[in-house]
Amino acid sequence: MVTLDKVYQAAFVLKGVARKTDLIYSEKLSTRSQIYLKTENLQVTGSFKLRGAYYKISRLSEEQKRAGIIACSAGNHAQGVALAATKNGIRSIVCMADGAPISKVEATKALGAEVRLVPGTYDDAYAEAVRLRDETGMTFIHPFDDDEVIAGQGTVGLEILDQLQDLDAVILPIGGGGLISGVAYVIKHLRPEVKVYGVQAERAASMLESRRAGKPITLGAVETFADGIAVKHPGDITFDMIGKYVDDIVTVSEDETAAAILALIEKQKLITEGAGAVSVAAAMFDKLPIAGKKVVCVLSGGNIDVNILSRVITRGLVTSGRNATLQIALEDKPGQLVGVSEIISRCGANVVSVHHERSDANMAIASCFLTIGMETRDFEQIEEIRAELTKAGFKITE
Amino acid sequence: MVTLDKVYQAAFVLKGVARKTDLIYSEKLSTRSQIYLKTENLQVTGSFKLRGAYYKISRLSEEQKRAGIIACSAGNHAQGVALAATKNGIRSIVCMADGAPISKVEATKALGAEVRLVPGTYDDAYAEAVRLRDETGMTFIHPFDDDEVIAGQGTVGLEILDQLQDLDAVILPIGGGGLISGVAYVIKHLRPEVKVYGVQAERAASMLESRRAGKPITLGAVETFADGIAVKHPGDITFDMIGKYVDDIVTVSEDETAAAILALIEKQKLITEGAGAVSVAAAMFDKLPIAGKKVVCVLSGGNIDVNILSRVITRGLVTSGRNATLQIALEDKPGQLVGVSEIISRCGANVVSVHHERSDANMAIASCFLTIGMETRDFEQIEEIRAELTKAGFKITE
Repeated sequence: MVTLDKVYQAAFVLKGVARKTDLIYSEKLSTRSQIYLKTENLQVTGSFKLRGAYYKISRLSEEQKRAGIIACSAGNHAQGVALAATKNGIRSIVCMADGAPISKVEATKALGAEVRLVPGTYDDAYAEAVRLRDETGMTFIHPFDDDEVIAGQGTVGLEILDQLQDLDAVILPIGGGGLISGVAYVIKHLRPEVKVYGVQAERAASMLESRRAGKPITLGAVETFADGIAVKHPGDITFDMIGKYVDDIVTVSEDETAAAILALIEKQKLITEGAGAVSVAAAMFDKLPIAGKKVVCVLSGGNIDVNILSRVITRGLVTSGRNATLQIALEDKPGQLVGVSEIISRCGANVVSVHHERSDANMAIASCFLTIGMETRDFEQIEEIRAELTKAGFKITE
Repeated sequence: MVTLDKVYQAAFVLKGVARKTDLIYSEKLSTRSQIYLKTENLQVTGSFKLRGAYYKISRLSEEQKRAGIIACSAGNHAQGVALAATKNGIRSIVCMADGAPISKVEATKALGAEVRLVPGTYDDAYAEAVRLRDETGMTFIHPFDDDEVIAGQGTVGLEILDQLQDLDAVILPIGGGGLISGVAYVIKHLRPEVKVYGVQAERAASMLESRRAGKPITLGAVETFADGIAVKHPGDITFDMIGKYVDDIVTVSEDETAAAILALIEKQKLITEGAGAVSVAAAMFDKLPIAGKKVVCVLSGGNIDVNILSRVITRGLVTSGRNATLQIALEDKPGQLVGVSEIISRCGANVVSVHHERSDANMAIASCFLTIGMETRDFEQIEEIRAELTKAGFKITE
């Protein structure tokens, strides 16, 4: 059972190991509510996961510590477990599906774990971890459905209450539910009037669906770039705790999450992963009754692959009107490119790519396509460019 | 004259206005030295500039405050001045060249300043600011060459000494020299054994060149994407103070700065602008005698245009071997694309773009070019792919 005693003990054990991450007031995100950011993306290992893993490991018996620990994760839990084991001087094995990004494998190894790459999916890696546990007597560290792990994550709640006395609500991501269970438990026991809200990716809403069904259910598939909360089946402990302590659960779309990541980059200079940004996405896109309230959004982590980050930024620029691509059908005669360029330039946009194609088999012989990428100011400017091009007789096909 | 008294007074005045930004130990950047990051990129307005501007304005007479203030900047100083004026309840005008990015104009307006767009360059905007000052009696707030401004920036030094007692060195960017003058003054008066190093962009090294010349000189042109330190002519006060208190000045290249920005994103989840990352670039690329030392790198700001950020990330991925583009000359016959794709896939890289071109007027009729973009693991993998393609008879032209 999770108790306040355990959470206080975890806070004590974590001193000098986990950072008391800064709580930053965001003037620029505070349009409808006063938004404070709990920056667990700046935590050691780049996410809150170290807290639960470290506290769990500190509670093992000497015999269990000698046998070592085992985990199954290609993400933040892997790094939390690896560092926690290394700092406790014990052996750790982390099972991952063999398709895991090399960067995650290397990061986990660098923190001192042995990585076992298992052919297949997460489920195969999980089966191998269980087999290894049974064979070796090592202790399996569950990523979320464990009282000590939940108590460790609960220390985030203690810090928030210490850092902001008069808060009205806390918004957290939900994957398996470990973080929100711990934080909601702390908040509702110490400050029951404070609201606690959970956020899931709309195509990975296993906890929300389970809540509706009245019991933990398993989703057939989860599809989100927020891999930190792509969980098919919630925990039993976390399902019960969330039922008791969490006021509401809402979902956000992939584009809303990408927009939140971009807003945190531009307005707050912070990198978050998908899971780390959904709390802000829920606030930005008005999913919760928090107008005029003092709200803490927990940025749970920042471990986003930089190639994905690059795509998120590009997508965010498009969805906020700062980047646009137009396809224009041109007659294949001299002077056409000049005409288009001149209009774009006059409207104040900056051309970043040009692709001129006349070899498409589907096209009339005397015509060609111009695809032109631009940095733009906003949607208004894009509309102005479209209108001017149309007025000048160009045919915009996309 | 800058005095410790002024710096202490600035620290007092700034309470509740500027954040005491976190000093974060970076395990992952600490390969040769122990690296601590002073996160002024997380300062209100996204840079340290608020400190100096606010303290300066707080020292104006009531009459001066009534007349208002004027500044010339399209960058961090503009936002610092705007917010400082607004918080003091006084009027501010900021002159910018009319080519200033719309995002900077809007950010400055949002903080309460009137923005005057002046046709031409920075020098034209500066002339207009001086003209307005003379005409209106408003006080001109210099971005760096001013005792109170320097004292305000010096509060960064007080915080560093409070946050890390046993440091060996501090590394800071140099543009006009206001930040490093203030910090070096504080450090050398309170802890003279601590080294203070300055970093400039190699194609904007006006302070380094001036130091070599023994007097402030003016560069013909400055060329760097680190716009926060693109200064042609150092200040007179800052030139003297840097001569007295700064141990050495080094330069970093554009690619080194981009690599530092990417490292801070990936390893620390922090966004920095070019100027904000040069201190880390100097440490990463071994420009200074700091091996084994405890070093504070000051991340001076995070206000980077997101389109530029996107390009920096792409460039950083290329220079670190995580993204590569190959151009291959193919014979124009079926099966060629399959052969290339198969080899790349077997080597474990991820194809992200393909461009197949046979209409180039310079090419033999029976041949064509394939340009293929890939996400890769490291340079080793790229070399492996090149070797395998060559072995299979493909001709890599780029």
